[in-house]
Amino acid sequence: MDPYKQLSQLGIELPPAPAPLPTFAMTVQTGNLLFVSGHIARKDGKPWVGQLGTNLTTDAAKLAARSIGIDLLATLHDSLGDLKRVERIVKLLCLVNSASTFTEPHLVANGCSELLIAVLGDAGRHARSAIGVAQLPLGACVEVELVVQVAAG
Amino acid sequence: MDPYKQLSQLGIELPPAPAPLPTFAMTVQTGNLLFVSGHIARKDGKPWVGQLGTNLTTDAAKLAARSIGIDLLATLHDSLGDLKRVERIVKLLCLVNSASTFTEPHLVANGCSELLIAVLGDAGRHARSAIGVAQLPLGACVEVELVVQVAAG
Amino acid sequence: MDPYKQLSQLGIELPPAPAPLPTFAMTVQTGNLLFVSGHIARKDGKPWVGQLGTNLTTDAAKLAARSIGIDLLATLHDSLGDLKRVERIVKLLCLVNSASTFTEPHLVANGCSELLIAVLGDAGRHARSAIGVAQLPLGACVEVELVVQVAAG
Repeated sequence: MDPYKQLSQLGIELPPAPAPLPTFAMTVQTGNLLFVSGHIARKDGKPWVGQLGTNLTTDAAKLAARSIGIDLLATLHDSLGDLKRVERIVKLLCLVNSASTFTEPHLVANGCSELLIAVLGDAGRHARSAIGVAQLPLGACVEVELVVQVAAG
Repeated sequence: MDPYKQLSQLGIELPPAPAPLPTFAMTVQTGNLLFVSGHIARKDGKPWVGQLGTNLTTDAAKLAARSIGIDLLATLHDSLGDLKRVERIVKLLCLVNSASTFTEPHLVANGCSELLIAVLGDAGRHARSAIGVAQLPLGACVEVELVVQVAAG
Repeated sequence: MDPYKQLSQLGIELPPAPAPLPTFAMTVQTGNLLFVSGHIARKDGKPWVGQLGTNLTTDAAKLAARSIGIDLLATLHDSLGDLKRVERIVKLLCLVNSASTFTEPHLVANGCSELLIAVLGDAGRHARSAIGVAQLPLGACVEVELVVQVAAG
């Protein structure tokens, strides 16, 4: 399964990877594990703002989670040089900006999980937790972090 | 220490492991580390619903966390074939469905931590974080995920 | 870069490491990865209480996050015997006690991230997620957990 062909078939063009920041790294590799920093949802280059149970629907947030999946692939492509070096998405943590009444963070997370499986196949199938949190950086509606097993470069 | 003897002495029968889901895996192994997906509390096969500080006591939620510990052991038994392959529970993350006034997520988490130590002995003693979150999938009161070091099968 | 010289130049004296607890370990090592339990902010030996967006400013909480960084280094010194065995801070998770209106958990997290980089240099630069949660143990304003790559002892 060629992830670039899958992306092409899905009509997805990888955006530029998020720029590095002074206080932390977008990825750190230790052995053959790559830890990927939390990526917040973005729309037109700005934070995708909203809170589930307040002013955003599950369907809209699922799309936001899918867009994070694309940004995560952009970061992996940038960090590894080649998405074929992804041997397995090991673990995904999906944080959903939630009112105390919103009980579907798992449905939001599916937006990211399904995208990763669509592009990477079995290598994209991961262990996962999905939770509703009080807020996220810059008011973003969703944030996702990963642990990834990678092949030697 | 035989975990099955310990379970028997505690009067615990392992339930069936949670069924696999289309969008993620209950466990993913990388090297000798097994990442275990977040397990929500269940009672009589349904989500154990409730929010600390709103409609559930610390003692009740501690029991819910203990029941997650049993479900996690069921998943480990199912995934590894033998609980004796658990060399160490490395890390536990306990997420407690909390009103903004509830400050005892660590006491809730003890329900799961104490069960793992009772069944696995020193191998069950883990690093841990316990936090209060805005909500959890299906309204569950507690969710726990693990990182586990395992012996070759 | 000698972390002890850096600490001295910053005028920081490492406090005693937090005492071990019955239900979990402050650190667990697996292979060359050390998983460090969530450390809550403390002031004068007591939990540093407060909630962002309710009764604590971003600047104050950033100081609390910095103090957690110092406590984490104390735990690493205690656990490893020598901070020079820290090869890399791999991953940091910063949990900020937040009202649903507070959107700057990343600025709070910088307090811890910047301290780790000031003391450890490039080895202190990590992947990171920062999130706002409903509450934390004992009402603490910030909690931080780490994954650290360590050299053999």
